[in-house]
Amino acid sequence: MHEGYAVFFLGLGLLLGAARFLGELARRFHQPAVLGEIAAGILLGPTVLGAFAPGLSAFLFPAEGSLGVAMDALMTLSITLFLLVAGMEVDLSLAWRQGRSAVAVGLGGLIVPFGIAYLAGWLWPVFLGAHEVSGRVFPLFFATAMSISALPVIAKILIDLKMYRTDLGMIITAAAMLNDLVGWIVFAVIIGMVADAAPGVSVAMTIFLTVGFAATLLTAGRLAIDRVLPFIQAHASWPGGVIGFALAGALVCAALTEAIGIHAVFGAFLFGVALGDSVHLKERTRSTIDQFVSFVFAPLFFASIGLRVDFARHFDPALTAAVLAIAVAGKLIGCRIGGGWSGLPRREIWAVGFAMNARGAMEIILGLLALRYRVIEERMFVALVVMALVTSMAGGVMIERVLKRRRPVRFVDVLHAKGFVSPLRATDFSGTVEELSRVLSQAAGLPPGDVFRAVWERERTMSTAVGLGLAIPHARWPGLKNTVAAVGISDRGYDADAPDGVPVRLILLVLSPAGDDDQQLDLLVDIAKTFSTRERVQGALACRHLIEFRAFVNSLGDPAKD
Amino acid sequence: MHEGYAVFFLGLGLLLGAARFLGELARRFHQPAVLGEIAAGILLGPTVLGAFAPGLSAFLFPAEGSLGVAMDALMTLSITLFLLVAGMEVDLSLAWRQGRSAVAVGLGGLIVPFGIAYLAGWLWPVFLGAHEVSGRVFPLFFATAMSISALPVIAKILIDLKMYRTDLGMIITAAAMLNDLVGWIVFAVIIGMVADAAPGVSVAMTIFLTVGFAATLLTAGRLAIDRVLPFIQAHASWPGGVIGFALAGALVCAALTEAIGIHAVFGAFLFGVALGDSVHLKERTRSTIDQFVSFVFAPLFFASIGLRVDFARHFDPALTAAVLAIAVAGKLIGCRIGGGWSGLPRREIWAVGFAMNARGAMEIILGLLALRYRVIEERMFVALVVMALVTSMAGGVMIERVLKRRRPVRFVDVLHAKGFVSPLRATDFSGTVEELSRVLSQAAGLPPGDVFRAVWERERTMSTAVGLGLAIPHARWPGLKNTVAAVGISDRGYDADAPDGVPVRLILLVLSPAGDDDQQLDLLVDIAKTFSTRERVQGALACRHLIEFRAFVNSLGDPAKD
Repeated sequence: MHEGYAVFFLGLGLLLGAARFLGELARRFHQPAVLGEIAAGILLGPTVLGAFAPGLSAFLFPAEGSLGVAMDALMTLSITLFLLVAGMEVDLSLAWRQGRSAVAVGLGGLIVPFGIAYLAGWLWPVFLGAHEVSGRVFPLFFATAMSISALPVIAKILIDLKMYRTDLGMIITAAAMLNDLVGWIVFAVIIGMVADAAPGVSVAMTIFLTVGFAATLLTAGRLAIDRVLPFIQAHASWPGGVIGFALAGALVCAALTEAIGIHAVFGAFLFGVALGDSVHLKERTRSTIDQFVSFVFAPLFFASIGLRVDFARHFDPALTAAVLAIAVAGKLIGCRIGGGWSGLPRREIWAVGFAMNARGAMEIILGLLALRYRVIEERMFVALVVMALVTSMAGGVMIERVLKRRRPVRFVDVLHAKGFVSPLRATDFSGTVEELSRVLSQAAGLPPGDVFRAVWERERTMSTAVGLGLAIPHARWPGLKNTVAAVGISDRGYDADAPDGVPVRLILLVLSPAGDDDQQLDLLVDIAKTFSTRERVQGALACRHLIEFRAFVNSLGDPAKD
Repeated sequence: MHEGYAVFFLGLGLLLGAARFLGELARRFHQPAVLGEIAAGILLGPTVLGAFAPGLSAFLFPAEGSLGVAMDALMTLSITLFLLVAGMEVDLSLAWRQGRSAVAVGLGGLIVPFGIAYLAGWLWPVFLGAHEVSGRVFPLFFATAMSISALPVIAKILIDLKMYRTDLGMIITAAAMLNDLVGWIVFAVIIGMVADAAPGVSVAMTIFLTVGFAATLLTAGRLAIDRVLPFIQAHASWPGGVIGFALAGALVCAALTEAIGIHAVFGAFLFGVALGDSVHLKERTRSTIDQFVSFVFAPLFFASIGLRVDFARHFDPALTAAVLAIAVAGKLIGCRIGGGWSGLPRREIWAVGFAMNARGAMEIILGLLALRYRVIEERMFVALVVMALVTSMAGGVMIERVLKRRRPVRFVDVLHAKGFVSPLRATDFSGTVEELSRVLSQAAGLPPGDVFRAVWERERTMSTAVGLGLAIPHARWPGLKNTVAAVGISDRGYDADAPDGVPVRLILLVLSPAGDDDQQLDLLVDIAKTFSTRERVQGALACRHLIEFRAFVNSLGDPAKD
């Protein structure tokens, strides 16, 4: 296929670039990245580009021939590595420690939707897009697809809402882990039942091997990995030495599950669970695998989903609505029952339900496998993808509503596009605050003089210089709709009565709506934590424009998530 | 190819596991990892496994069919990403700053071997394994293959010898960068001359496009990347957000160079140079790409080289000797002339020559491309691989000899296999030293009482407790061949007159041969630097056996390389 490599690389490069761009765009609107990644594939695939320029889309991403084979192999490798990372996020001991609540919610959220969906799949296979109506496989698949949660998406929602380390967050996470683990094993068994998956291996044998493989890997395999890891770390290169061995193990396990007639993803997922459970796995190794897979392989895979199916042609509104209704009803009722049994407060039960309801990537992968094994039709696949995206998007919003929690705002989110002044020209601190107030007032359409007076009045009651050369003058402003902020950097230092006596050089001016005291406090704490060391302030002072300042703050991470 | 994925994943997993294992083994003997990685492919490929079980080797790694296509695509992707990382290591501004010396050595080490090898290739094409005797391409290829250095291998040798940040190290690195950059562009032009590489594009056009592409990417492209990076970093996820965009750019550039008739690796390499040159590229991003590629894609690719060719059948001793002689003579003479012209001292010139002589991965990649484009025969490819490995292995050894430098020893390298005691039983510090002396003496076959007396006599002149709970008792021992060391960990603390008054809990006992004062001092400094913070000492105290202790020390990195 040598002559095809130009097209192969061009296709990959465009797909990855578009997936990352739209993935970041989705994140900016607080949506899961997978939404943008699939959209990239829909744009470049048969649905959009194919509709306007069918030749170009087919040229870039041919389904047949050497290029098609190579793409398919790379995407299978990508999804296998994604499941390795998803498995590494499962912490069995955490799930165990949460005990009864996690087990109740996890099993309730698994069994109830499973039962409801099984019934629906058995009653209405034609309407629900079963490929073969007579088979007993379709109801089982549909039941599993409706009952598995998406641990990565759920974890992301909880982190965004600062709930990940709360008791409730731990219960949700543990329940989702149990749910995932049991659900995937059940699905592996179903795939094994699709007779022609592994010629020469009987269905009963596949089920026996699947359960045996999972049990062995999660007990003996887990112990063996825990023993071998320190040995590798003692003798291999640092920090990357373990990465290659981890991937080699995942690939061999993937091969084993393929050989027994279920998909490679299961082997990689179970190996990931066993590996991630070892206390010897260093954070650096985990993060390198996670980052590379999450930002290269996962976007490629999810974008490729959009390439496979014409989402416009196969969109069936009635089916999609039905799938969505069954999915949401099953999860909410199941978690309601499980949560009620374990004695959780009512409000929290609903939060757990909406969290567990997020499906994200996992249902899409299940759907893709089912499509490949000819269990479902394209329109059912499209319905599953839409359901997975809608439930993921709704998860965070609904939890916010139910628990009356607010997504914390970071000060970089409220920085005005014109609110960056470097260097400041004023000769004393009050002049500086006036200069910055003027810039921000003009940008936000407020009376400059009044803003300065309000800020300065607050400043005179007690200095907002917190030390290390940072000051955070601020004021509330009646009638302001949203909080706005501006940054000023000075080459000289100003005396602003800081507790450590260091002259102020970095000034962040914050204007909040009158009455929104919580958010103002959050922002001031966020700023103080972000610039908590001399190096961090120095780094900010070196920035020459807003983009650079944003990039620098971004590179420090979110202090609230540490 | 769905039925083939079990074999695909099994082959990949075995290949990666074997490559990483033998790569680490090579590193332990202070040899480049690529040596072990290629050996893994030779073991699993036609040369060894194929000789005993040809069916098995061909089953795991088929050259034809869907599996062959998928493997080939993955390996092409791997080498492309490896060249991206190699390009990222090139620092144009560093090369520029070293000025005349770097330019003289770089060009001398390029032009002279190029000239000598061109002559040889023109005179004896048959002997040298040219595929087509009449062509003008073979002498050009051979000349280029003899004149390109391997920057990654050279950098590794310099780091191992603690020479990377010396003036001489900078000159060598800068010269190798220039050498690489010019050499690769020349080779790209040659590949363009192989007429059937890109149907429909003339040779002159390919040359024009190659030089134009390189010039554009290294000027306008470099500036554009430098502008866009802060913008991406300001808005994308941290820390992995940039990774996907970096790879997307490399893939698109790879596609462009493929399209103009030269190989994808050139585009990725040049994009890497342009990207790596930006001060905005964060260390974390660079390291994540580097680690993942170096420990997954690179081992896979180099192991796959061993799969392609039967190294036993195609080994031609006379040809290999000739290639080795031409390669070494050309580089040494070229660098001698260049170095002499720039006024380097005689001894340093030879060191530069042997460093630039290391070929490592780069010549192997060139050889592989030449083999694929049918410029050379298999026996020439094998000779090139052997030459590349021999010159890489010789590099470090010869520089040590010429400069009379010694490879620094780390204390973990001299820890005795039985020299780990936890918890110590003694009740005071002198008892502890006696306990540890007894263990180490028995293990090393020395008289225990005498060893303790020697150590304790030294200890009484001045306490070796350096603070934070660490003590390093030590002594010289006449007749001891090699330095040995032991670790003792105590649950209680001992009063040992430490400067900070902290009771000693971590004790490292070091016995050196009489007369080897430099090494003893190096080791004591190494230990003190390794345990320079409270957290590091605490981490060591938590280790329960030697493997864990080694893994922990390994995870701290080598303080001498920071």
